[in-house]
Amino acid sequence: MKVVALAGGVGGAKLADGLVRILSPDELAIVVNTGDDFTHFGLHISPDLDTVCYTLAHLANTKTGWGMKNETWKALKGATQLGGPGWFSLGDRDLGTHLERTRRLAEGETLTSITQSFCQKWGIKHTIYPMCDQPVATMINTREYGWLAFQDYFVNRKCMPTVLGFEFKGIQRSKVDEDLSQKIREADHIIICPSNPWVSIDPILKVNGFGKLLEGKRVIAVSPIIGNHTIKGPAAKMFSEMGLQPSSLSVAEHYKGLIQSIVIDESDQDLIPAISRCGIISYVTDIFMKSPKDRIRLANFVLKSAAICRE
Amino acid sequence: MKVVALAGGVGGAKLADGLVRILSPDELAIVVNTGDDFTHFGLHISPDLDTVCYTLAHLANTKTGWGMKNETWKALKGATQLGGPGWFSLGDRDLGTHLERTRRLAEGETLTSITQSFCQKWGIKHTIYPMCDQPVATMINTREYGWLAFQDYFVNRKCMPTVLGFEFKGIQRSKVDEDLSQKIREADHIIICPSNPWVSIDPILKVNGFGKLLEGKRVIAVSPIIGNHTIKGPAAKMFSEMGLQPSSLSVAEHYKGLIQSIVIDESDQDLIPAISRCGIISYVTDIFMKSPKDRIRLANFVLKSAAICRE
Repeated sequence: MKVVALAGGVGGAKLADGLVRILSPDELAIVVNTGDDFTHFGLHISPDLDTVCYTLAHLANTKTGWGMKNETWKALKGATQLGGPGWFSLGDRDLGTHLERTRRLAEGETLTSITQSFCQKWGIKHTIYPMCDQPVATMINTREYGWLAFQDYFVNRKCMPTVLGFEFKGIQRSKVDEDLSQKIREADHIIICPSNPWVSIDPILKVNGFGKLLEGKRVIAVSPIIGNHTIKGPAAKMFSEMGLQPSSLSVAEHYKGLIQSIVIDESDQDLIPAISRCGIISYVTDIFMKSPKDRIRLANFVLKSAAICRE
Repeated sequence: MKVVALAGGVGGAKLADGLVRILSPDELAIVVNTGDDFTHFGLHISPDLDTVCYTLAHLANTKTGWGMKNETWKALKGATQLGGPGWFSLGDRDLGTHLERTRRLAEGETLTSITQSFCQKWGIKHTIYPMCDQPVATMINTREYGWLAFQDYFVNRKCMPTVLGFEFKGIQRSKVDEDLSQKIREADHIIICPSNPWVSIDPILKVNGFGKLLEGKRVIAVSPIIGNHTIKGPAAKMFSEMGLQPSSLSVAEHYKGLIQSIVIDESDQDLIPAISRCGIISYVTDIFMKSPKDRIRLANFVLKSAAICRE
């Protein structure tokens, strides 16, 4: 069974971690959102990409959900003491990644090549693809401040502003990596991880040519919403602000026409008929990943559901 | 007595430290070489400027002669584990400076303004001027490798290549800061600190308009050479490779036409007649600064010598 998983930050990283423990590097490739990439203190930072890589490399700080474990903060402390912005937490260990990524990008190496080189050094055997090598910036239109860069909205303003819409700046010039295209063509299943549909998955889906590659593919999504809430992040709040009831039904509707099935939480079984009316099959399990064991259990469930779907 | 001191790295920083303990912020301004500035891992690094600032702020690592005290190296370790270059030591605390400097430069702030803002935060009361706000790159022509960027020669190749000559790339577009120009005009004395004449002081002297500002000024140099050796750095080696006997006489000859007097080591008294034949007066003392006390003693001696010279 060949699988390509699409992932954003923490939730996506957790399911990806479950999947890599079940599927071989030949069977699984992971595509990660880079619409949240930004330049800070002159460094190129790829928060979602790092969250996925650090998680798979067992370097992640599981308490915070971002950054590296065993971290110190001397550089950021120095910079803020000089008047620099402290709203984006850059740990000293984490900075090593940003420094070397920035250095290589300036030398003309692609983000894909850099990511795969980093993964090799970190002992990650599965291939992780940034969604594209071209700069794409997720922009959030807000009632209070107009258009905000993603990290300004997400970290600096703690997702407080009211969301009116999204734009993926630069997406017109984006391209799907050739090797990744091949992996998608060969894939039996595409798994959309439980990441934010608006700002983690949509940027990936909107990369030039990505939609075409998915035509006729079997796609299964895992809902990032339980009841009316997200485990982490602003997905539910975004649904509300976009005038939609935050629920796994709204997630299913969001992906309508793309996915054939969705994995939803067992507490959301009442949504099955409505989801079914979208032409989407629901599979039901406990989708809350509290422990590493949960990640494997959910990954197994998703793969089993995908396989049923195939028959 | 109003003084402007010209300084490069460690030796210059030590004398500057002595001077600030004697002269008030109104009486002393310090100009620092930025020809050794470079971009590394995407960050703007100003090694001489940082050495002087860290020294005056009591943040310097006095053992290494560069970087900050109480330093850790997690970011650099992370970057090198990913294949990045480790030849330039970037400490975590030190990185804070580079991050914030890089951020502000990208926002269009001048290096002069940034430096003075940093000095204020670090509690440095005397004004420190980078030699100019325009990028100037000291290049070293070497027998073995042709032209090398300064830090490549100095740190990466440990000053091993044979020096054939120097160039200050970008110096044509450099300008002296207006406030600094005023300070130089008002100065009773210019002190050339015991820094490398070729790569620390010459870049400052060659900034557009700097030479003109020094015309008719009383200038006193402190030799960076004792016997045939430098305390630190490649000045003596450079003199040899340029076909000159490394000595305080060669330093005096280097600055001939610019300085009226030079402070040399008491062990070099035999050079006084030859230096005198250059039209330069020698003042003799122990110029080796081993302790903070030595810095004040030498600074007092230099100021006293300058004052004699004035009469």
